[in-house]
Amino acid sequence: MTVRYLEGFLVGQTFGSGRRVVEKQRMKSFAAEFDPQPFHLDRDAASKSIFKGLVASGWHTAAITMRLLVTSGVNLAGGAIGLGADELRWPNPVRPGDKLRVEVEIVEVRQSRSKPDRGTVRIRYVTRNQKDEIVMTLTATTLVPKKAETTK
Amino acid sequence: MTVRYLEGFLVGQTFGSGRRVVEKQRMKSFAAEFDPQPFHLDRDAASKSIFKGLVASGWHTAAITMRLLVTSGVNLAGGAIGLGADELRWPNPVRPGDKLRVEVEIVEVRQSRSKPDRGTVRIRYVTRNQKDEIVMTLTATTLVPKKAETTK
Repeated sequence: MTVRYLEGFLVGQTFGSGRRVVEKQRMKSFAAEFDPQPFHLDRDAASKSIFKGLVASGWHTAAITMRLLVTSGVNLAGGAIGLGADELRWPNPVRPGDKLRVEVEIVEVRQSRSKPDRGTVRIRYVTRNQKDEIVMTLTATTLVPKKAETTK
Repeated sequence: MTVRYLEGFLVGQTFGSGRRVVEKQRMKSFAAEFDPQPFHLDRDAASKSIFKGLVASGWHTAAITMRLLVTSGVNLAGGAIGLGADELRWPNPVRPGDKLRVEVEIVEVRQSRSKPDRGTVRIRYVTRNQKDEIVMTLTATTLVPKKAETTK
């Protein structure tokens, strides 16, 4: 895969990812470590909750989305160095066995004002399940080096 | 701990959490699964990166922050059901052995317009390390049931 520097990004570009299955046991063990709530851990308790069944922690979905991004075609030079993110939403729950993928779109490319060797790229992520339902969205700002400066 | 319904929240309330150490091996295994980038996985590669040493994945920091929240004094009735989050920032890196804690502040309490039995609480999280440096901030919107409606 080509490593992509700031100059390699344009607003409107889109990239896809591979797919990743959310295994029930991993869903539960992630929740046990990081988000120990009944609707992530126990089938019976979950069936009585607002979710009507077991669901993944939103932070597990976010972590899987990151994995899909890192191994996608975006391939940011220097790595995916997140400065921050906004508009994180979980419009539909993730269920055991769901198969997720992420679509990313470049929404802004900006030269740093103070540092000529870098800039930022704003990336819109949309994570979908096997039924194409949106399970997560996010807009992240990522630091990206310029090729002209870093390779001269 | 008292379970807290919508009526139990007021703008300006603050809550603290326990502390949690970020173990180096867990930092690396989390990254290997979800964020496999050299500056999260390999000491030598990390020392040559912008971070000048190993750092935790921002999503690992987010997951630890969730754990600290779930086991804090906030104790939301019905669980911490996140509708979404904004202003997620990682102003300083998390290093192996760092000890994290989270402070939360209630910034908005709102009755649902369409559903009398619930509302939303906006919560500002600030995650700090043992030197009191801020390593993550986040503003999350959480669904909270009303006691008056759910227990009558």
